[in-house]
Amino acid sequence: MAAAAARAETSPGPVAIVAGAGRLPLLIAAALDQAGRSCRVLAIRGFADPATRRRADATVDLLDVRGALDTLCAWAPAGVTLAGAVARPSPAALLNTLAAYRNRDALRSLASGGDDHLLRGVLALLEEHGLQVLGVRDLAPGLMAPEGRLGALAPDEAAEASVEAGRALLASLSPHDVGQAAVVASRRVLAVEGPEGTDRMLARARALARRPFGLGRPPAGMVLVKRAKDGQDLRVDLPAIGPRTVTRAAEAGCLGIAVGSGDTLVLDRAETVALADRLGLFLLGLPPDPEPSR
Amino acid sequence: MAAAAARAETSPGPVAIVAGAGRLPLLIAAALDQAGRSCRVLAIRGFADPATRRRADATVDLLDVRGALDTLCAWAPAGVTLAGAVARPSPAALLNTLAAYRNRDALRSLASGGDDHLLRGVLALLEEHGLQVLGVRDLAPGLMAPEGRLGALAPDEAAEASVEAGRALLASLSPHDVGQAAVVASRRVLAVEGPEGTDRMLARARALARRPFGLGRPPAGMVLVKRAKDGQDLRVDLPAIGPRTVTRAAEAGCLGIAVGSGDTLVLDRAETVALADRLGLFLLGLPPDPEPSR
Repeated sequence: MAAAAARAETSPGPVAIVAGAGRLPLLIAAALDQAGRSCRVLAIRGFADPATRRRADATVDLLDVRGALDTLCAWAPAGVTLAGAVARPSPAALLNTLAAYRNRDALRSLASGGDDHLLRGVLALLEEHGLQVLGVRDLAPGLMAPEGRLGALAPDEAAEASVEAGRALLASLSPHDVGQAAVVASRRVLAVEGPEGTDRMLARARALARRPFGLGRPPAGMVLVKRAKDGQDLRVDLPAIGPRTVTRAAEAGCLGIAVGSGDTLVLDRAETVALADRLGLFLLGLPPDPEPSR
Repeated sequence: MAAAAARAETSPGPVAIVAGAGRLPLLIAAALDQAGRSCRVLAIRGFADPATRRRADATVDLLDVRGALDTLCAWAPAGVTLAGAVARPSPAALLNTLAAYRNRDALRSLASGGDDHLLRGVLALLEEHGLQVLGVRDLAPGLMAPEGRLGALAPDEAAEASVEAGRALLASLSPHDVGQAAVVASRRVLAVEGPEGTDRMLARARALARRPFGLGRPPAGMVLVKRAKDGQDLRVDLPAIGPRTVTRAAEAGCLGIAVGSGDTLVLDRAETVALADRLGLFLLGLPPDPEPSR
């Protein structure tokens, strides 16, 4: 990855940003502008925000794989990055579109696996066309969570114990194809994230925390812990938090949020941190695990 | 545990069954009758089924800890078993009731921990009063899941892979205070059980399986895997499945259910197996993990 970034650094071509929903595409563009690197934006129709579309150099349909590849290849970019959410297309539409480019059995295997699996397929397709895929970490490391406290607050002892229990749990889950977040209180795991995503998991934790539980108040030291799995391809699958995560975590009764430093994106950092401070939540960047495997 | 069971076997006193909701208390009583061992039933008012109450030798309120202890001690039982569900009482009520018997700080610590924690507290209270607590495994081993196929159907290859992925996941989760069940499809984990219980987890998996996913049909090889954690005290916290589990798993789109043999109760086995056969689900008792720690 470091080598790839270095190559992109020295290559004369622009960085191509394939832009889905949200502010991330323009945050990356701004970071590249600031670093004096040129970039081009390929907006995905129906997903890219209005501001992104105004800045876009070209626009494609989500399922127009041929058009996207043609545009990207014509730009001869130093690297391509996929940024911003898109709804997963219907599997039938996806299969029909991609079928021209890849072996159908490989596609079936892709489609029946997890999202990880599908994203790895998209990545392979881009790379087969000579495009080098880069991640936010390579292009805009300043958008990633730093180590240590991000806002004004620090975890108390109970929250620290929960953060450690959550960290250990996610490390245990790392070899399995399962979510990368959990809600923990007093070392007890209230919820493990599945394909439903962080917001729905927090809604579940909120419902559980409201049941008669413990001393009749929300369970002590309730926290959200989120981080990448070992071996997760952060170029296409990056854990992220933002203002909405902070709001939902506060509603669930969390005292704070701990994320993997360097492997988790903090969207709209200033706003996210200010909101956490205002709602009384700590934000913490966890150091990498001590294991040599990380 | 083997020693405890042997002592109960040879002791002249009856086995005392503290009976909550459901059929388990009478299933244990029937197994003891069949084995020629005497038993007495202490029904919990408002929870024990009508049939259990008719068979009961005495009845107590859930929070009448003093009354329950007095009755149990008067029976001089060879052992006590806690059988059948009770709703967790409100924490304030629980604290007030138990406060006379245990140090308040210990109670606070109990109440803020997981259910495991609370059950261990109840267990300790009984043992402090000289009562020996026995589990279903000791008293009615025939109610536990055997190893291998329980019904007419066996898992196909996809389901077998999911069962193995679920088994490995639950083994990884074992050191953490989290649920003992998961729904897995194509090696991907759709849901991990938290304090919400198996039924709600299955409802979540059902919703996820209906989203556009994979090839537009329910994900391949979807299964429910359930088993005890390492070190779980099976006397007071026994994984269980029954007809309702089979119905909910079928509704979610599961091909079958795999449970830990010897550590999972199969309620109403004949009905459970017949229902699984009728709905086309396999039921499988998993062998113990190969690790020496089990």
